[in-house]
Amino acid sequence: MSQPSLHRPLSVADVPQWDFETDVVVIGFGATGACAAIEASATGADVIIFERNSGSGGASGLSGGEIYIGGNGGTEVQRAAGFEDTTEAFTRYLKMAGGPCVDEAKCELYGQEALAHWEWLKAHGIPYKGNYLPGKHIEPMGDDTLIWSGSEAAKPFCDYAKPAPRGHVIQFMGWGGGRKLVDILEQRTRDMGVRIETDSRAVALIQDAGKIVGAVMRIDNEERYVFAEKGVILATGGFVMNDDMRRKYCPLTFKINDPIGDKDDGSGISLGMGAGGEAIHMDQFFTTCPWTIPEPHACGVFVNINGQRFINEDCYHGRVSRTMIDQPGDRVYLLLDNAHYIEPFEHARMTMAGTGDDWAEVERELEMPENTLSATMEFYNHHAGKGYDPLFGKQAPLLKPLDQGPFIALELNFESSYFSFFTLGGLKTSTDAEVLDRNGGAVPGLFAAGRCTSGLPAWGHGYSSGLSLADCTFFGRQAGRKAANGPV
Amino acid sequence: MSQPSLHRPLSVADVPQWDFETDVVVIGFGATGACAAIEASATGADVIIFERNSGSGGASGLSGGEIYIGGNGGTEVQRAAGFEDTTEAFTRYLKMAGGPCVDEAKCELYGQEALAHWEWLKAHGIPYKGNYLPGKHIEPMGDDTLIWSGSEAAKPFCDYAKPAPRGHVIQFMGWGGGRKLVDILEQRTRDMGVRIETDSRAVALIQDAGKIVGAVMRIDNEERYVFAEKGVILATGGFVMNDDMRRKYCPLTFKINDPIGDKDDGSGISLGMGAGGEAIHMDQFFTTCPWTIPEPHACGVFVNINGQRFINEDCYHGRVSRTMIDQPGDRVYLLLDNAHYIEPFEHARMTMAGTGDDWAEVERELEMPENTLSATMEFYNHHAGKGYDPLFGKQAPLLKPLDQGPFIALELNFESSYFSFFTLGGLKTSTDAEVLDRNGGAVPGLFAAGRCTSGLPAWGHGYSSGLSLADCTFFGRQAGRKAANGPV
Repeated sequence: MSQPSLHRPLSVADVPQWDFETDVVVIGFGATGACAAIEASATGADVIIFERNSGSGGASGLSGGEIYIGGNGGTEVQRAAGFEDTTEAFTRYLKMAGGPCVDEAKCELYGQEALAHWEWLKAHGIPYKGNYLPGKHIEPMGDDTLIWSGSEAAKPFCDYAKPAPRGHVIQFMGWGGGRKLVDILEQRTRDMGVRIETDSRAVALIQDAGKIVGAVMRIDNEERYVFAEKGVILATGGFVMNDDMRRKYCPLTFKINDPIGDKDDGSGISLGMGAGGEAIHMDQFFTTCPWTIPEPHACGVFVNINGQRFINEDCYHGRVSRTMIDQPGDRVYLLLDNAHYIEPFEHARMTMAGTGDDWAEVERELEMPENTLSATMEFYNHHAGKGYDPLFGKQAPLLKPLDQGPFIALELNFESSYFSFFTLGGLKTSTDAEVLDRNGGAVPGLFAAGRCTSGLPAWGHGYSSGLSLADCTFFGRQAGRKAANGPV
Repeated sequence: MSQPSLHRPLSVADVPQWDFETDVVVIGFGATGACAAIEASATGADVIIFERNSGSGGASGLSGGEIYIGGNGGTEVQRAAGFEDTTEAFTRYLKMAGGPCVDEAKCELYGQEALAHWEWLKAHGIPYKGNYLPGKHIEPMGDDTLIWSGSEAAKPFCDYAKPAPRGHVIQFMGWGGGRKLVDILEQRTRDMGVRIETDSRAVALIQDAGKIVGAVMRIDNEERYVFAEKGVILATGGFVMNDDMRRKYCPLTFKINDPIGDKDDGSGISLGMGAGGEAIHMDQFFTTCPWTIPEPHACGVFVNINGQRFINEDCYHGRVSRTMIDQPGDRVYLLLDNAHYIEPFEHARMTMAGTGDDWAEVERELEMPENTLSATMEFYNHHAGKGYDPLFGKQAPLLKPLDQGPFIALELNFESSYFSFFTLGGLKTSTDAEVLDRNGGAVPGLFAAGRCTSGLPAWGHGYSSGLSLADCTFFGRQAGRKAANGPV
């Protein structure tokens, strides 16, 4: 027999001693793990969180602290801004965002429960300023609350689900509110008496007659054995930092170069699979290049190397960026006229690829055949001037003729521009966050949430900002409650 | 503990009796299983093949009996036709065909060994007429041997690997030579004394201290226990007939409706995963709609619902078809002029969507905006008349202006046209066909080949006819030899 590992649970018979004993073990201390611990603890269960780093954070701590919330008539922030967000419209959008990978049951549950989740977040101390910031923003530059954070108002989504802004951002000045979000959740776990063990890396699960009853943690270079009476919750994030897993499961990400994550090496996915869980939609990933900054650039038009448009550019920046990666060649171009051009966001690493007094000159500078890019732009401008985009359905206010020279083409190169990305595939779980085996049965004692699972953000082309943290915090809570309450 | 199943091996301690005892068990009697059995038997090992149907066949039996072969200067058929096919060019093409999913070691081994494999096939009685059939064919209508069966001569492949035709088709009049191929291989297994048990369905593997030592078969409604001293070989095919697996792993296939397979329900993949093997590239699939029939249609041009071309149409019909599925909407159009139009192949279920005396009229009939399809065709014809395709690099002899009216648009609808498909993802295996676990180690006693593995045809956009049977027959042989010879 091989040694117990990420891929094979240790038999309880081989446990030399119990170094820790508790009701619920949570592995990973990002937003998912914190929410799981809070809810488990709230039932009266004893809880320990193990975190491999020296403190909380995970990928959540690197995020903008934005959570996708709506339905049931809308939050008070949505309502004050004039958006009455029905559960039907909200749920419908969630399902469209899941595309071919959708987990309908999770969308339906979250559609019903998101407003209550919002109340829970506030009750646990997450502050919101309460105002609505119109326009197209990746994250607010100030401390505003509500933004449009997906493709709700764009085709085809708006034809099927009444749009509303649903990105609810923690009150925090500038980008990076995720760190504050996790800090507040961490303080809650401490207030509730959750035990926190940092610098502790999970190396195996422990199994007793098919049930997961604990985990082997590596602490101070030694193996420590943890007994979990009620269950183990995996909250370890995705596998964007694991090249071997990316090559096997998500090789398209090798076209781009900027993984976002902390130590997201897929260890929780491996632990779950080793215990009999199954991983699904492992080829899916989010990516974005921040091309909508500065704001006038959101009026730009994208063409591929053949001078063809490929999407309505008023979709969510990440949906547009994900579609870029599907294009032939190693780059796409963002076209702007003088009325909309401002020096590009340095962080995006876009370069000036061509300029001209008309689009034909830009076309020549890019060494494209005559009547490709220029024909595309003539067609686009002709219709944009009349207020419509017959090909892709781009809409006002971003639909504007680009006809005031000089004209500019910025290159977004998959190799050298900043395309951040993270993985979306992971363990298949029930709406109660139970890890499911290939028969659809729950692996006894094992739970998971966040990016080590396939959840609300299931499909790269449908990602919307705040979907991942919604999934992490909500299904993290589900995991905590279900583990603590045990089998019904 | 749950019952042993496809997902969980039975412990040898729970085996009530051995109903069969042998050296090597092969599960599945298509081309893969037959080749595995022949090679295992050739070492002197005792071999039993179990097949759930009443006779041999599998998906191989439904195929054209075409095998992708080249390298080492070429087969005598290639050489007689004037193609000196180097190992370097052959291997390079195999790797490009694997795209982001490529298994380089398998490409390199097969690149070296394909010519020897060709000799082996002939030595085992597979007949070849020996002639070369130029042109673009899905399969020969006659009993010809050598055809162009991939994208070798098309961009971008031809820029990196010197093209040669490599589809070697069994001598058989018309389509469907795969049945004859399997019949001959079956006869060889019988001649060699391989035991054949039909109407026998694998329901679980049997494990002894981590090693696979047999299988539980369902025969006559009873469980029968099979001991395999040297190993078990999975040769069970893909999962195209399993909707649940498709939904979890390959949901894009729900856009189309014509699975090709026998009972390809993924059972071997499940057995392998249950024993600790891992499955990779499960999102990949082959698809094709037979649009190159009748032959003049191969000169056609494809546009998506926005009137844009999307690929050089002189690629392999399956690569073109797979790219269709990536386009927006639920259909694409094949454009033809009167010089190239013939009544379409009935089986393809394409429909006449629009006609006109010029392309502008076709555009109107398809209710496309003015200057979309017509501009695409004006551009295409202008350059095709000069012998080049500046956008996608389509080449002679299929690059022809479509300028002789009346003009026709045939609709290929993803819902209603015939898009056949099968899955390409499966167990990760070594070049010796050992099933590999998530650490890259071999699962002792377990081997697999063919479409229950991810092999030479790893990437849907790179599929070429004959790649799957090459993979099945060659790595089936590897499995048979490695299982019979045991650990080195």
